[in-house]
Amino acid sequence: MIYLDNSATTKPYKEVLDSFIKVSSEYFGNPSSLHELGGKAERLLMQARGQIAQLLNVQQNEVYFTSGGTESNNLAIKGTALMHRKRGRHIITTGLEHASVKEAMEQLKELGCRISVIAPDKNGFVHAEDIEKEITPETILVSVMHVNNEIGSIQPIEEIGEMLRKHSKVVFHVDNVQGIGKVPLDLYKANVDLCTISAHKFHGLKGNGVLFIRDGLLLSPLLSGGNQEWKMRSGTENVAGIVAMAKALRLTMNNMEKHLERLSSIKRFIIDEMDKIEGVAVHTPERNSAPHIVNFSIKGFKAEVFVHALEERGVYVSTTSACSSKKSAASSTLMAIGIPEKDAKSAVRISLSYENTKEEAEVFTEAVKETVIRLREVMKS
Amino acid sequence: MIYLDNSATTKPYKEVLDSFIKVSSEYFGNPSSLHELGGKAERLLMQARGQIAQLLNVQQNEVYFTSGGTESNNLAIKGTALMHRKRGRHIITTGLEHASVKEAMEQLKELGCRISVIAPDKNGFVHAEDIEKEITPETILVSVMHVNNEIGSIQPIEEIGEMLRKHSKVVFHVDNVQGIGKVPLDLYKANVDLCTISAHKFHGLKGNGVLFIRDGLLLSPLLSGGNQEWKMRSGTENVAGIVAMAKALRLTMNNMEKHLERLSSIKRFIIDEMDKIEGVAVHTPERNSAPHIVNFSIKGFKAEVFVHALEERGVYVSTTSACSSKKSAASSTLMAIGIPEKDAKSAVRISLSYENTKEEAEVFTEAVKETVIRLREVMKS
Ligand SMILES: Cc1ncc(COP(=O)(O)O)c(C=O)c1O
Ligand SMILES: Cc1ncc(COP(=O)(O)O)c(C=O)c1O
Repeated sequence: MIYLDNSATTKPYKEVLDSFIKVSSEYFGNPSSLHELGGKAERLLMQARGQIAQLLNVQQNEVYFTSGGTESNNLAIKGTALMHRKRGRHIITTGLEHASVKEAMEQLKELGCRISVIAPDKNGFVHAEDIEKEITPETILVSVMHVNNEIGSIQPIEEIGEMLRKHSKVVFHVDNVQGIGKVPLDLYKANVDLCTISAHKFHGLKGNGVLFIRDGLLLSPLLSGGNQEWKMRSGTENVAGIVAMAKALRLTMNNMEKHLERLSSIKRFIIDEMDKIEGVAVHTPERNSAPHIVNFSIKGFKAEVFVHALEERGVYVSTTSACSSKKSAASSTLMAIGIPEKDAKSAVRISLSYENTKEEAEVFTEAVKETVIRLREVMKS
Repeated sequence: MIYLDNSATTKPYKEVLDSFIKVSSEYFGNPSSLHELGGKAERLLMQARGQIAQLLNVQQNEVYFTSGGTESNNLAIKGTALMHRKRGRHIITTGLEHASVKEAMEQLKELGCRISVIAPDKNGFVHAEDIEKEITPETILVSVMHVNNEIGSIQPIEEIGEMLRKHSKVVFHVDNVQGIGKVPLDLYKANVDLCTISAHKFHGLKGNGVLFIRDGLLLSPLLSGGNQEWKMRSGTENVAGIVAMAKALRLTMNNMEKHLERLSSIKRFIIDEMDKIEGVAVHTPERNSAPHIVNFSIKGFKAEVFVHALEERGVYVSTTSACSSKKSAASSTLMAIGIPEKDAKSAVRISLSYENTKEEAEVFTEAVKETVIRLREVMKS
């Protein structure tokens, strides 16, 4: 199997699973329990929080654990909107966002918020000036993703953050689910207030995520109760999953140092090979794109047909983002950057991890070439 | 170690961990992915849903996966309040509920809901008549727990459900986190619309729960996004955790058939032994209480002192509910049933699972007796 769908989810590292099992079986206590079994669990939790804080270059008390990227995004957006509803009800976002940002915004609309959606340019980028133009005294939140999950374009987070320094009451949220461990981002330097990451995208376990909440910023919790996570997110902590996430993040960051260049060159190779195939259009921008995502259309074929044809050769790729794939809707990012619907429906996304090799990329590109030839023949006859 | 804090959390069954590892490492695909690795994950998810539905005696499309009891309670309560806010804003609950119900209600108050809190009687029970008296045309939700997590009293869910048949527009939510696998509850017969369970309370893994949502009932989602779980709860599914939860529930239900009587007799034994100790008052009601919880005060000692003294003998018990223990607040249930604050602060809770034995109960009761004698001597001198 050649797995090239790492933006949908990744295979957990073996060490990550080992940590999970060890904590689940030996330190299964509830961190809130007064006895030593609770105490041990609490210390593991603190330790994991410290490790993650260090890896993200932030303070420990700015790391909040959630059940994943979707929860972190919803908490960031709805939590800000509810907390600051008396100050204003205007939110700015982009046409590039993941469904968990988009849909959270839709719900807020129903509750009386006004949402401005910034259109990306044809290469898949939004611009700080376009965001600034929309800011009013009513604006409470700007939410922009770091790396787009469908085409891999990297948004100018630092510039947007810099611009927002002039608008200090506006909270800045960044969905960094696809960027973490692949594209460096200095949260303090970029003036980010809220940042989402999700463990299963970097070889951690599903059901675990982080919301970075800048020290002093208050959100209205989505899950209230026993007041875990400084009241921002109640519920018995998934200590084993959190310890496993800390390990996954450390291993990923280590791999970034060691293998980022290799990953970039594999991506370069794939794009070059795709460019050579007649009828293939690459949608991933040439510059300012993440090292792990390549998106291209193969004119004249529905993406599903192509995904299944590659699967027969043991290569796993995807159509659009995983959560939209079942609806066979065209990729919303491609539509937003002006790709005609027909081409958007023949778009294929491959997404790499540090585990992928050049050899796998070669098998993949050969498989694409042969599949295109074969499918064209089938269609002719 | 004698672990008697199973209402705080339980040790995962070995088979549960085995399932988790197998699914995480071999079937790690995203259920939304079109390729076969996604397909396999999706089938595992469906299978787990089917198993849980069967064990709960409900339909598959009524089983929704969440990150735990706190999320299920928040989704049930806030989801109903937001969905039906145009029809009414009055909610009825009880003075016995877990923090995740109480605090969700507090948040709704701030958003303009009116909350009626039914006081329990001195034995720890609420009554259907008292609830009915509060119902108005504005009432949208009644939320009552099945088994109280602090003293183990079983609420008359069937009677309340029966009464609510006359008020068919009122949604009925039951927090069954402590009752599942210990006290049978027929959800259809009891006319329940929403029911919460949490995996880590029955030897499953933390971070997994279920909300039963009766067919046709709509909630406003807390986590929106990729439209997983029929749009009620978005986010990449924690397939491994869910498969593990299905296994934990099956093993627990099997154990209930085999060991419920034994568990009840251990509880009986503990209560009888506690009753013999001078200065000990048992708060768990004689009748209609769950087979696994015993709550008692030891006059004159702070509960913490007692918890730590027992811990030195390898016996793990708790003060109040785990999530309140750190605040060293008196048990809210005990206060609600009229126990003086001083006695409430010397309350100890033990909570059993099917793994506990009579021998462990004997060690525990001996340890209590000796600790009482020793601490009294220390205080005299
Ligand atoms: C950009 C982006 N944001 C958010 C999410 C949601 O994360 P999760 O699957 O952990 O809920 C995803 C992936 O699904 C994503 O790609
Ligand atoms: C009665 C009750 N409801 C809800 C919960 C919350 O469940 P979880 O810890 O899975 O969030 C608990 C336990 O903490 C509980 O005892």
